Amino acid sequence: TTVSTRNTKFRYRPFSPGATPFGTSDRRYLTMNTIGYAWCVRGEEGYASSHNTITISFFDLSRFKEYHFEDLTGYDVCSLTENGALFAQSKLGILHYRQHNQFTANWTKKIPLQESERITAIAATAEKMIVGTSFGYLRTFNSYGVALGIEKMSPVVAVAAQGYRIFCVHFSPYHGLSYSLFEQHPDTGDHFFAKESSLPLTLPSEIDNGDEFGETFPNFSPLGLKSVFFSTYGDPCVFGADDVLLVLSKWRNTVQTKWIPLMDSSFEVWRRSGGKNVDDVRVWPLGLTHHILSHILVKGRNAWPDFPLPLPSEMEVRIPVIVKEKEAASQPDNAEDVNLPSDVVAEEEFLRSRILGELLADTLEHDGQLYGDEDRVLNALAGAYDKSLLRLFASACSSQDVGKASSLAKELKQDKALTAAIKIAERAELMTLVDKVRAMQEARFEEQLNSRG
Amino acid sequence: TTVSTRNTKFRYRPFSPGATPFGTSDRRYLTMNTIGYAWCVRGEEGYASSHNTITISFFDLSRFKEYHFEDLTGYDVCSLTENGALFAQSKLGILHYRQHNQFTANWTKKIPLQESERITAIAATAEKMIVGTSFGYLRTFNSYGVALGIEKMSPVVAVAAQGYRIFCVHFSPYHGLSYSLFEQHPDTGDHFFAKESSLPLTLPSEIDNGDEFGETFPNFSPLGLKSVFFSTYGDPCVFGADDVLLVLSKWRNTVQTKWIPLMDSSFEVWRRSGGKNVDDVRVWPLGLTHHILSHILVKGRNAWPDFPLPLPSEMEVRIPVIVKEKEAASQPDNAEDVNLPSDVVAEEEFLRSRILGELLADTLEHDGQLYGDEDRVLNALAGAYDKSLLRLFASACSSQDVGKASSLAKELKQDKALTAAIKIAERAELMTLVDKVRAMQEARFEEQLNSRG
Amino acid sequence: TTVSTRNTKFRYRPFSPGATPFGTSDRRYLTMNTIGYAWCVRGEEGYASSHNTITISFFDLSRFKEYHFEDLTGYDVCSLTENGALFAQSKLGILHYRQHNQFTANWTKKIPLQESERITAIAATAEKMIVGTSFGYLRTFNSYGVALGIEKMSPVVAVAAQGYRIFCVHFSPYHGLSYSLFEQHPDTGDHFFAKESSLPLTLPSEIDNGDEFGETFPNFSPLGLKSVFFSTYGDPCVFGADDVLLVLSKWRNTVQTKWIPLMDSSFEVWRRSGGKNVDDVRVWPLGLTHHILSHILVKGRNAWPDFPLPLPSEMEVRIPVIVKEKEAASQPDNAEDVNLPSDVVAEEEFLRSRILGELLADTLEHDGQLYGDEDRVLNALAGAYDKSLLRLFASACSSQDVGKASSLAKELKQDKALTAAIKIAERAELMTLVDKVRAMQEARFEEQLNSRG
Repeated sequence: TTVSTRNTKFRYRPFSPGATPFGTSDRRYLTMNTIGYAWCVRGEEGYASSHNTITISFFDLSRFKEYHFEDLTGYDVCSLTENGALFAQSKLGILHYRQHNQFTANWTKKIPLQESERITAIAATAEKMIVGTSFGYLRTFNSYGVALGIEKMSPVVAVAAQGYRIFCVHFSPYHGLSYSLFEQHPDTGDHFFAKESSLPLTLPSEIDNGDEFGETFPNFSPLGLKSVFFSTYGDPCVFGADDVLLVLSKWRNTVQTKWIPLMDSSFEVWRRSGGKNVDDVRVWPLGLTHHILSHILVKGRNAWPDFPLPLPSEMEVRIPVIVKEKEAASQPDNAEDVNLPSDVVAEEEFLRSRILGELLADTLEHDGQLYGDEDRVLNALAGAYDKSLLRLFASACSSQDVGKASSLAKELKQDKALTAAIKIAERAELMTLVDKVRAMQEARFEEQLNSRG
Repeated sequence: TTVSTRNTKFRYRPFSPGATPFGTSDRRYLTMNTIGYAWCVRGEEGYASSHNTITISFFDLSRFKEYHFEDLTGYDVCSLTENGALFAQSKLGILHYRQHNQFTANWTKKIPLQESERITAIAATAEKMIVGTSFGYLRTFNSYGVALGIEKMSPVVAVAAQGYRIFCVHFSPYHGLSYSLFEQHPDTGDHFFAKESSLPLTLPSEIDNGDEFGETFPNFSPLGLKSVFFSTYGDPCVFGADDVLLVLSKWRNTVQTKWIPLMDSSFEVWRRSGGKNVDDVRVWPLGLTHHILSHILVKGRNAWPDFPLPLPSEMEVRIPVIVKEKEAASQPDNAEDVNLPSDVVAEEEFLRSRILGELLADTLEHDGQLYGDEDRVLNALAGAYDKSLLRLFASACSSQDVGKASSLAKELKQDKALTAAIKIAERAELMTLVDKVRAMQEARFEEQLNSRG
Repeated sequence: TTVSTRNTKFRYRPFSPGATPFGTSDRRYLTMNTIGYAWCVRGEEGYASSHNTITISFFDLSRFKEYHFEDLTGYDVCSLTENGALFAQSKLGILHYRQHNQFTANWTKKIPLQESERITAIAATAEKMIVGTSFGYLRTFNSYGVALGIEKMSPVVAVAAQGYRIFCVHFSPYHGLSYSLFEQHPDTGDHFFAKESSLPLTLPSEIDNGDEFGETFPNFSPLGLKSVFFSTYGDPCVFGADDVLLVLSKWRNTVQTKWIPLMDSSFEVWRRSGGKNVDDVRVWPLGLTHHILSHILVKGRNAWPDFPLPLPSEMEVRIPVIVKEKEAASQPDNAEDVNLPSDVVAEEEFLRSRILGELLADTLEHDGQLYGDEDRVLNALAGAYDKSLLRLFASACSSQDVGKASSLAKELKQDKALTAAIKIAERAELMTLVDKVRAMQEARFEEQLNSRG
């Protein structure tokens, strides 16, 4: 009678950002991000004294020093920060924190788990430790392992944290796929920006690309998650089975919050390869630094990086508005980027500069300057925005499409861009359009005068 | 192990408001609303030169003129407005816009789709074009096809739009059944009134009325949706497999938002037919004009209208609070409406005038007068409200039920209605009740004095 | 193609707080709470004149008097209040209200149900009657049965009410498991505190404890719900298949709302039994009075209480942060409570006093004093909070863990507690720590001066 209960059994797996399966080797990455990676070498089976070895490696060798330790507990979840690493053993409920190269500040703690409950995700920052389970228990600790809070949410499948902010992914057949974003600040108290709101992740079962999701990876990461993290500007990001980078925009104001697809990394691989079918090249995400996706470029049969780890690569984000046209693909010099129609390129740039501008403006307004160059970056984005619009405007002018050109002029932000639009329209001898844009410019001028009053 | 992924495969289908399947014929309605309908005649199979013909027909022949065109692309989604028609080919990602009888302003555009992604729903207004897909990509364009925005939500199954407002239905086995309602206004920016909130649609699988949902219709519209649209007063409406018209009330204030069942059209068909079992008569919705459901009355085996289209009919909404009593059904003159007990009728009228009054008051307060007669209509509703209450009050008086009568008097709004209640109670010689109602009247008078103070 | 529809058929069952199945007997409890219980004796089958008998029994015999009546309708849902009892017959749509021992104020009413729709849950208060169905229709009536409102939500599986506030649990395979919490006040209007927000209930299928959920109970209560109720301080509570008491905290402010696991009653049974495996002892919940769970202690094969009903028991809540350690379990005197490590006990007390304090402070701030002793209770909780922290602080001092001790001192609330911490640190001869805590104390003093300034 209660059929739904049996069929919808979902197997919860411990998940850490950037973690990989053992596959056929004896080693795997426990976690990976822009700071570095923790990896585990499995002890030989059959030997009583056998145990795992965990190594913490860093990308910036000038700031950090690699270290390793023998792991008798079998930790299978990890969160790596600039200060230390938090580990958990998902079935035993054991937590273990190590400050990098500081043996004194380590601690180990055990939390209660109900029968068949598992720790599924953990996250550490300098301020907070977060532990989530397959039953939805979310426990907060201070950096010395003192329990500060407990609550029950839908089952947790992934967690990321930055400062006092926590981003959490939930899934169960009964509760659906959702995310929570909240802050637990000692001064301002607890505050949910989102609580189990729908997370529009594309799932392995929806994409059916046999190879990658044949067996190993969906067993390891049933929702196809590859990483979850905060961008350097503080926005939550998700990278899933479809190799699309999603970023949460305007999350501080619930009525404006949106998930934006910042890039389809498989499209970018295609574009950069000159439009060849490159099914065996993939992006393994590390983090989003400004408008750059740091990643490991993975080649071969597996979707995840092997040992030793290649050096990180960088890729500028591109909004997925461009169609993979076969014509574009067949190019003479096949090592070059695909030559895309200029209109298409301009439309993407227009959307990208608008979206990145909105993301940065929101951070700047609420959290203030983080790196000192935010105003400069914002100005550059505003310039790119108007320039791309003017290219679309010019193209509409050469097609004599006054209506479209006029609709594009409306979107221009700067006065000098309107002046440029008028010149373009004049050169195209579209006098109705010239009059229209001039009228817009005057109306805005009036409005500014009045608002200054 | 990840059983849920395979079992819950849902087949996404392009959906347009009022669209019908081909069934066994060579033609179908692509969309249908109070303005008119677009219909498609399938080209003969087996002929290389074969192609579809699409015709746009209108109900108001004094304002619009029917036209048709040859469709070489195979458009299968359509949104019809007073200005034009937006089409999409769900698998190819092709959009095509035609202004009615204006060949110059047409445009065609292609959007990127991932493998197995489909366009599922589109909507056009004079201000915006919206395109939703089975992967949840929601793209916004201006009326010239310039991309203005992109976001990812849960998979989209239906969209309607009015001015700058967009109503969107989402479904996937992982995200559930939900709706979004938002505004994208150039002056006030983007604003979500609801974002993937639960949509309480009754689904085909829940009703099991074999005939209609045997095969063809659920294959065509898996969630049983018949139409989604905005009412003339600007409220989102849904009409599903259960033939119930749902309207979203007080959506501008999230903490008060409710889905109200405005009418069970199959009950109304029953009532109007004198209580006969009329399983082969159904309502096919076009739109909600004030308190009138415009529809096509469908007779026969199919739930959807055939060719040629009968003239639209009108039906006043009735809140579903009345029980189908068999006694009432067996009436002498079987062509007449069912005679319902007067108490039952009064209770329905009381609820209806309250609900319609709240809907209209909300629109009036936030969007202002739309047709100029809103104040008059509101007054009429307030009058009907008190009158129906007084009938219930009189009935309680004749049953000597002072408690109930008193509870009804509390709901009265106008002072003159309280006076009338006192007279009714006096006639029934219920002096305790007279005193109670008089006390209410005095208390309200005091309160008004004080608040004017 | 629409596979999900058939597989996910969920069988809706009428649910009342504390209700039990017939099991193998001829009697069952229709509902049960801190006031009393309604129980039903099934009429003998095969006899035409056979009918059920319903008895209303009370715990406080000085205030209430047991009564019974013959039930010809077969009521299977019940809500018991201090004033009366509301019944419903789930398939026929019949409602019946009886004021305790007042035959005059009774009424019976029928509501329309669609084919295969069922009444699933009802609730009565002195102000409101609420009726929810398996199709999600939620109807509101005044205490005389006059329909005041109707709306459609996701299918309803349980309802509780207190004054003008309504707590509602929803479930369907398409809408997930969620809850709504709202107020319908004649003065302030309708207000949703939560609308179909996710409810983090652990479900029978997730726990697999064969015995209890072998057959009878999940057929009776498919989601494993045992009770839903408002606590005496007005917070919604849920008690499910996992025997954990969840309470909704800070629900008046949406951005702070959390479900808190107030106690794992099976852990408490284990602890109190001296750590023995006591699988056949269970807690059947009645209500939460301040920090005390009123319940019936159930022994034997069934999870639910049998006839006659044992007297109610009381159990103080304990936050589930303690691990069931086997060592602790093997104690000499096995009738005693388990001796838990003092640090563990202090950490639980710290969290408990914080959580209970937040719950009570929220009620006090918004609804004012309810019983007159709330300020006293709040002060006691604040004292317990600091005392438990000081014990943890002392323990960190004896381990020479200055970092941890310092992090604990930060959480102290009262000035005198900081003074005590300084003394403890002095005694442990941790002078760095003494300086740190002294600095905290001074900083707070300054801050207070300035804020008064």
